[in-house]
Amino acid sequence: MSNTIGILFRVTTFGESHGPAVGAIVDGCPSRLPLDASDIQPQLDRRRPGQSGLTTSRSEADQVRILSGVEQGLTLGSPIALVVDNADGRPADYEAIRTIPRPSHADLTYRLKYGLTAASGGGRASARETVGRVAAGAVAGKFLAAKYSVQIVAWVSAVGECDAPDLTGETMTRDQVDANAVRCPHAPSARKMTALIEGAKKDGDSVGGVITCVCRHVPPGWGEPVFDKLSALLAHAMLSIPAAKGFEIGAGFAGARGRGSEQNDVFVLKEGRLGTRTNRSGGIQGGISNGEPLVFRVAFKPAATIAREQETADYKGQTVKLRSQGRHDPCVLPRAVPIVEAMAALVLADCAMQHAECRMQN
Amino acid sequence: MSNTIGILFRVTTFGESHGPAVGAIVDGCPSRLPLDASDIQPQLDRRRPGQSGLTTSRSEADQVRILSGVEQGLTLGSPIALVVDNADGRPADYEAIRTIPRPSHADLTYRLKYGLTAASGGGRASARETVGRVAAGAVAGKFLAAKYSVQIVAWVSAVGECDAPDLTGETMTRDQVDANAVRCPHAPSARKMTALIEGAKKDGDSVGGVITCVCRHVPPGWGEPVFDKLSALLAHAMLSIPAAKGFEIGAGFAGARGRGSEQNDVFVLKEGRLGTRTNRSGGIQGGISNGEPLVFRVAFKPAATIAREQETADYKGQTVKLRSQGRHDPCVLPRAVPIVEAMAALVLADCAMQHAECRMQN
Amino acid sequence: MSNTIGILFRVTTFGESHGPAVGAIVDGCPSRLPLDASDIQPQLDRRRPGQSGLTTSRSEADQVRILSGVEQGLTLGSPIALVVDNADGRPADYEAIRTIPRPSHADLTYRLKYGLTAASGGGRASARETVGRVAAGAVAGKFLAAKYSVQIVAWVSAVGECDAPDLTGETMTRDQVDANAVRCPHAPSARKMTALIEGAKKDGDSVGGVITCVCRHVPPGWGEPVFDKLSALLAHAMLSIPAAKGFEIGAGFAGARGRGSEQNDVFVLKEGRLGTRTNRSGGIQGGISNGEPLVFRVAFKPAATIAREQETADYKGQTVKLRSQGRHDPCVLPRAVPIVEAMAALVLADCAMQHAECRMQN
Amino acid sequence: MSNTIGILFRVTTFGESHGPAVGAIVDGCPSRLPLDASDIQPQLDRRRPGQSGLTTSRSEADQVRILSGVEQGLTLGSPIALVVDNADGRPADYEAIRTIPRPSHADLTYRLKYGLTAASGGGRASARETVGRVAAGAVAGKFLAAKYSVQIVAWVSAVGECDAPDLTGETMTRDQVDANAVRCPHAPSARKMTALIEGAKKDGDSVGGVITCVCRHVPPGWGEPVFDKLSALLAHAMLSIPAAKGFEIGAGFAGARGRGSEQNDVFVLKEGRLGTRTNRSGGIQGGISNGEPLVFRVAFKPAATIAREQETADYKGQTVKLRSQGRHDPCVLPRAVPIVEAMAALVLADCAMQHAECRMQN
Repeated sequence: MSNTIGILFRVTTFGESHGPAVGAIVDGCPSRLPLDASDIQPQLDRRRPGQSGLTTSRSEADQVRILSGVEQGLTLGSPIALVVDNADGRPADYEAIRTIPRPSHADLTYRLKYGLTAASGGGRASARETVGRVAAGAVAGKFLAAKYSVQIVAWVSAVGECDAPDLTGETMTRDQVDANAVRCPHAPSARKMTALIEGAKKDGDSVGGVITCVCRHVPPGWGEPVFDKLSALLAHAMLSIPAAKGFEIGAGFAGARGRGSEQNDVFVLKEGRLGTRTNRSGGIQGGISNGEPLVFRVAFKPAATIAREQETADYKGQTVKLRSQGRHDPCVLPRAVPIVEAMAALVLADCAMQHAECRMQN
Repeated sequence: MSNTIGILFRVTTFGESHGPAVGAIVDGCPSRLPLDASDIQPQLDRRRPGQSGLTTSRSEADQVRILSGVEQGLTLGSPIALVVDNADGRPADYEAIRTIPRPSHADLTYRLKYGLTAASGGGRASARETVGRVAAGAVAGKFLAAKYSVQIVAWVSAVGECDAPDLTGETMTRDQVDANAVRCPHAPSARKMTALIEGAKKDGDSVGGVITCVCRHVPPGWGEPVFDKLSALLAHAMLSIPAAKGFEIGAGFAGARGRGSEQNDVFVLKEGRLGTRTNRSGGIQGGISNGEPLVFRVAFKPAATIAREQETADYKGQTVKLRSQGRHDPCVLPRAVPIVEAMAALVLADCAMQHAECRMQN
Repeated sequence: MSNTIGILFRVTTFGESHGPAVGAIVDGCPSRLPLDASDIQPQLDRRRPGQSGLTTSRSEADQVRILSGVEQGLTLGSPIALVVDNADGRPADYEAIRTIPRPSHADLTYRLKYGLTAASGGGRASARETVGRVAAGAVAGKFLAAKYSVQIVAWVSAVGECDAPDLTGETMTRDQVDANAVRCPHAPSARKMTALIEGAKKDGDSVGGVITCVCRHVPPGWGEPVFDKLSALLAHAMLSIPAAKGFEIGAGFAGARGRGSEQNDVFVLKEGRLGTRTNRSGGIQGGISNGEPLVFRVAFKPAATIAREQETADYKGQTVKLRSQGRHDPCVLPRAVPIVEAMAALVLADCAMQHAECRMQN
Repeated sequence: MSNTIGILFRVTTFGESHGPAVGAIVDGCPSRLPLDASDIQPQLDRRRPGQSGLTTSRSEADQVRILSGVEQGLTLGSPIALVVDNADGRPADYEAIRTIPRPSHADLTYRLKYGLTAASGGGRASARETVGRVAAGAVAGKFLAAKYSVQIVAWVSAVGECDAPDLTGETMTRDQVDANAVRCPHAPSARKMTALIEGAKKDGDSVGGVITCVCRHVPPGWGEPVFDKLSALLAHAMLSIPAAKGFEIGAGFAGARGRGSEQNDVFVLKEGRLGTRTNRSGGIQGGISNGEPLVFRVAFKPAATIAREQETADYKGQTVKLRSQGRHDPCVLPRAVPIVEAMAALVLADCAMQHAECRMQN
């Protein structure tokens, strides 16, 4: 279902980049969860445009309002409607794209599908759509933390040609991630990444990268065999983020180059439970969580909208030169960190709830 | 939903590796599609164990029977029940794993989730579960070919450290792919891959790899914005295949290293329609097909079950040495080719049907 | 899914009776449908409290705002967020029910399920929840009228012991239905019904009744065999309306008393198509529309909240006397007419979209 | 979804009346439930044709085979495939209906929807489709009994003009219901009903009726507010049964004639919990079970296929006289009793599982 994700913990987002508001309905959240706007706002602030020199200059306070589902600081078990007003829409910036589809953006495919063009071109293909995801993901994250102590932390692990060292073994926190504007907790790498992004910005260009995400304290047993493997649900959720082009879990593509005897995670006793000595599986075996941390990586292409001139074709097929106006991020990665966390939380909250009734007692 | 995939074109698979039968129900296939077992059997034959020296020696004819949904060679619009009997089950081979979970297999996670252990250990985590997928995928493939001329062709593009050159620009056919047992249509690479697999087999070991898949003639407009982007649905479907650990579309992880000005697919007039000069997007922009071929890659880890001795722990946590019995593939890649094609077909058939009503006429 | 209905044309409602707002997200509506608030407001006005002496005195303007999914008077194909602010909430009226659950209301069952009590007692069990349904149903109705010329008209056919004569053969319009406050288009019956409602009101009591609904110009072929028969979907939708306790289609319960030879609808040629001489099937055979008008009836119990004293028990089980405060309808039927129409429209819009791809051409 | 019901406890049925087999896949049943064919066969035997002189003479042993999901007498948590072979199909009986659609049957609507005609006319609209429902319902019933002690008992409460007295207050058992062939546990009424059915049979006619169903020991809290009220799910499930035309819960249509002060179920202390003095609500308030027995009634029209001559039209619109061949029930009610019980069990099992996670602890 296009604008809904989840079976029991279900989220529906709405809103165009240049309409009155964006938001989400969270349906299926258990009752009696303590919740108010202060649980949601911090993640929206991390996603907010204009938070640093590395991001778009669009100015949005992105204050969330809770219209339903919460009374006196507790969830009611009913749908939680979350709304964020759009303040700084500038549809006029998109006049040019009425005649020229932006290369590698969704302007053309939306027009082919829907037979029209929204004020912002690709309608819901704006990064602004992710406001609803982040707000809803914060609710899911609160539920996961309160009931299961699940911790979800993502960071930028590559920008362009710069790869940070593997930090998945460390107990990274969101505060550590936020120590710099690029959201890479390895300071020397962060400096190089910042330079790459600033270089791209100066050239009117954009640059891609990779986000790594770790989910700790996920109980064993989550995820469904066959089609809804936990890894498959995460892949689905991550590839649904604008500009995401790749996903790998555990050893991923690199692990495919090895042999079973090197890649297998053998078992050892760990604090009274059966754990694995290594975690090349990324916390999932046979699609089901095994109690080790989930570890996955998401590749983002460089943002499609660039100020630099491109020779392309207009809707009539005539060759034209395009310089995109509008305010855009030279690198979406720093702001995508809370989006990755939100999508992980939505997947895990739904898995938690689906898992509850999978067996008779004992 | 654990054993079902799709919203309108829905497939539910069933069956354990060592029970009486495996199969699938295809629900939602349009009526009046010409269909009989000969449309399904060829793909099952490509997936069948024992087809070459590179695969497991388990012997299964895997003849499909159609129990419903088809009369006189035409689909009725009702559920198509597809059943394949298990002939060569050997639950006795799995006695050892009753006390020792296989490393990186699903034995432990299934036990943690379901509180018991199936004859084959990880229950539905057997490659045999994919019989139903391949049978159902063949029905989807027939529908896509008949109505839209969609062609889906996958091949092995890497085994271990051996990468075949990029062949996505060529008009590969399944016959060309089947020219050798490893299913890599680049003969020199195929020879190296064969040697790598035979080497692993000799060592009682296994080896991983990558499958590339191309879907041609996908009409523009398929896929849903936001959560059910076509790329997200493909990622979901591919990561649901046993042993899959990574997915990338178009330029994928490599593209994340570049700049927008290099990675963008600018538009050009192509046979009267607006096409892209390059296809780094892999045929999808904003989650919606753009009329170019879909191109994606799936990473498979080396098979977890190996004959070689592993030092691991049993269910009680005691260190033991395990040599897996049973008949297993040293490399799952050649047999996974029709599985990847099947999953792609299931996703596309469902997208085709969901797309039908997305706009008022004109 | 608790607060969502529909598979392709999907509606999610939100909002408590005494929170900031109520509303709905309509997802899946095709693009390019002409739509603005004036398409929605008339049905909200028919549902609005305070519209006549027969309804609750709660005063709500119920002006709908469209937050997304529409630009320049056309739907975009993206989610349509519809919001109506609550103006006249009076949570204080519900102080008594914090200790005493209202008989036959949802106060107790919500507390048993959710472990708490909303300001309005039964949380979402307020008639105010139906604002979102009516707004969303108006969008569905616009789609059905624009694309298929479907007409949906409901009216009050019984109040208490007063049954209006069968009017299903006539070409009733909403204007005719609205000729009187009770919304029964048979004037002599309307007068009797009005007297019954006023009598109940005077006694601090409530009275039940029946609504009949006719859907004309529904194309043949809508509805799915087996579980999602059109009749089953309508029954589901109607029984989901607060206070609904019965549903029958065509001859319904009365037809169950007859013989096949009397009840069968034999075929005749009608304007070039095969029609039925009678319509005891209510327009549906085998769960699929046959081109005749859909005709069904919905029974509503008398409203549970009454001013008259009831001897009941409080949450501790002690016998108490309860006189409900708050502003309530002595008879929900007149205001339920647009709700029945809305639910019928939601079902039909979804069926229309699901039907599109059920067969290969010809 | 046409051939699937349920969200967590999901059942998909398949099979045509005159194809090789019919059956169902039960997906989502918890693991470790004791289950074998003997749990399923008794309900199939109650549904089986040819069990008495009141039913069709078609001879089917209807022996169920379990193809998957169960090992050593315990469910695995994987899909349970249930298959029943068709033995006594006689497609030749349906030659006449290739040119003449049976009045009030699904022959015409299936042709209009699917563009062809199955061997049995209305394809899946045969009572034989319900084999899968009854088999799956038996699994659900076992789960409900084992985990919650839920008891589901239905009986024939009306045939034609003969109404049995209200027996819902008694602790009826299936054995008592089966004391006579008509399955009405009130002997004097059963005799009258038998005479009515035999009279209709002699006349080549059919007769309708009503089934009452009681579900005892349903825990409070089941059912979802708003669209998936327990009453709405039951209505959906019941109206999906072939020939069902009406549903009412508790006081139903009769209760709509009363006043709130008479109809309300006031609360009393019952064995330490808050219960209701009366049960006009039928065990459901605000869509959620309240701990009282569920009580509902389903109206069935007389079977459409009758031997008696009917003047109708053929597919070309020409007036013809039709006498249906084939073997059919003069009254579907006795065999529909286990079908009603099955559908109730499927709804309740799904509600039980959805309910599990609706609130944080306490």
